Amino acid sequence: MFREKIKVLDCTIRDGGLINNHDFDLRFVREVYKALSEAGVDYMEMGYKNSKKLFSAKEYGKWKFCEDDDIKKVIDGIKSNTKISVMVDVDRVDVEDVLPRKNSPVAMIRVASYVKDIDKAIFLVNHFADKGYETTVNIMAISRALDNELTEALEQLEKESKAKVIYIVDSFGALYQETTEFLIKKARSIVKTKEIGMHAHNNQQLAFSNTIEAIIHDANFVDGTVYGLGRAAGNCPLELILGFLKNPKFDIRPILDLISKEFVPLREKIEWGYIIPYAITGILDEHPRAAMALRNSDKKENYREFYEKLVSEVGE
Amino acid sequence: MFREKIKVLDCTIRDGGLINNHDFDLRFVREVYKALSEAGVDYMEMGYKNSKKLFSAKEYGKWKFCEDDDIKKVIDGIKSNTKISVMVDVDRVDVEDVLPRKNSPVAMIRVASYVKDIDKAIFLVNHFADKGYETTVNIMAISRALDNELTEALEQLEKESKAKVIYIVDSFGALYQETTEFLIKKARSIVKTKEIGMHAHNNQQLAFSNTIEAIIHDANFVDGTVYGLGRAAGNCPLELILGFLKNPKFDIRPILDLISKEFVPLREKIEWGYIIPYAITGILDEHPRAAMALRNSDKKENYREFYEKLVSEVGE
Repeated sequence: MFREKIKVLDCTIRDGGLINNHDFDLRFVREVYKALSEAGVDYMEMGYKNSKKLFSAKEYGKWKFCEDDDIKKVIDGIKSNTKISVMVDVDRVDVEDVLPRKNSPVAMIRVASYVKDIDKAIFLVNHFADKGYETTVNIMAISRALDNELTEALEQLEKESKAKVIYIVDSFGALYQETTEFLIKKARSIVKTKEIGMHAHNNQQLAFSNTIEAIIHDANFVDGTVYGLGRAAGNCPLELILGFLKNPKFDIRPILDLISKEFVPLREKIEWGYIIPYAITGILDEHPRAAMALRNSDKKENYREFYEKLVSEVGE
Repeated sequence: MFREKIKVLDCTIRDGGLINNHDFDLRFVREVYKALSEAGVDYMEMGYKNSKKLFSAKEYGKWKFCEDDDIKKVIDGIKSNTKISVMVDVDRVDVEDVLPRKNSPVAMIRVASYVKDIDKAIFLVNHFADKGYETTVNIMAISRALDNELTEALEQLEKESKAKVIYIVDSFGALYQETTEFLIKKARSIVKTKEIGMHAHNNQQLAFSNTIEAIIHDANFVDGTVYGLGRAAGNCPLELILGFLKNPKFDIRPILDLISKEFVPLREKIEWGYIIPYAITGILDEHPRAAMALRNSDKKENYREFYEKLVSEVGE
């Protein structure tokens, strides 16, 4: 038995791009798209739709901008039912860059927002919905959201937004399953006309179990990345989600091939996964940026000092 | 708030010994003992108490046998409240090798048993309890146990055994949190006069979340290993347990130091953790031995072929 409504979104290239300035080459992205298509994954998110007025195309790879022409080069000639998604950040997108859905290879636009920016997120998501896109609002840093403010944001999203899905995003990898249950149930109780989604980070090796927990409590959109690739500790491994879900439309084998051929070699070049400084920021409910800086320093294995520094910074 | 009854057992040297034939040197084991003692961990398990009539001391390191004199060399001169545990396997121990508790540095003996061997386990555990030891029975391969046979085993353990703790052991790393909840509740409902314990494997990155799940449903003994060291995918990382538990007696910092100084270098020499063939055996609820053989072959990254071979072996 399976729940047909569950949709799997792969954000390997988007979240993985946060490690390498979104500079994956076309061949690699095509291999990912091909494998996801064969595996029956519902959506593939390629990157961010940022304004080139704000970020230099010389400093970042093309998946920082996700222009339609670059996306077309990825999908050209590959048989697929996998829909394309891009993410936008509040204040970083020029809505004029986004063509109407019927003229674009993109099917879904996801708006990432902190609770405090929810009005801006609703403006954006409604704009994209009016252009014909499937849309989501992804509420970031949920482990730091104050309960009353989160309640208000969820009520606004339910009443005022045209988003199809509201995502809970555990940006810091700080949630345990009890809090995941609380948040998904809370969202479900307020957001009655839309789907709920879960995007988890793996700092404490809980991304997969929190994703299962969300599914148990009726989230129907779940995010994963191939081999858990993603900033810092990375994300929920897509291959584990496919192993768990019983929908016969999914096939894990193309993803196993892809990991063997592309991701094992990639892991030799860039770092992500269960690494103690990321576990520490997860335990302390902190953004991983201090841990990322540590990993780029000559004190990269100096865990105790890092922990004591973070703890000492907590204060009144 | 915390639950004072929760006891943490570290089995780094015991489960890690399954990778290197129990051949950790004395200095390393002392460093682990020192750190666990400073961290306030309740028990440290050093290895197996196997009969030297059955296994050659030339082929295995000393933690395959855990002689009292070797244990004394580890703990000598180190201030500690951490109790020493050893494990025995049904049919592999000579009970005459075990001195009375009052003459031994060992405080706890854990008997590992499949459901089918539960009568032998009860004989052993009662023998060791009569010699004055704290004792546990660890029911292995629980994901493969038939429900009626497990019920009978738990009833026998409750009625006939002197064990202090009955452990659920997810040998294959196959459990999701719903099944963990089912098994812990089942054990709790039958075993009313003893504690319940959880020993998890990390094939699907669920060892930590299954351990939390067990705690939620009233298991009070939990196993971890430093940096998740253990056979194949390894175990629940001790550092994550200490980060989760709120008992102020625990201090994560000595464990962070230990990982920096000893376990990061060790990981360069021996392999454990999230590796796709172990994830596959976990998903398929299989013993990891086929995956371990693969990792020692020249097809070690050939995941798809491995998956297809395992799936094709399933049959009537």
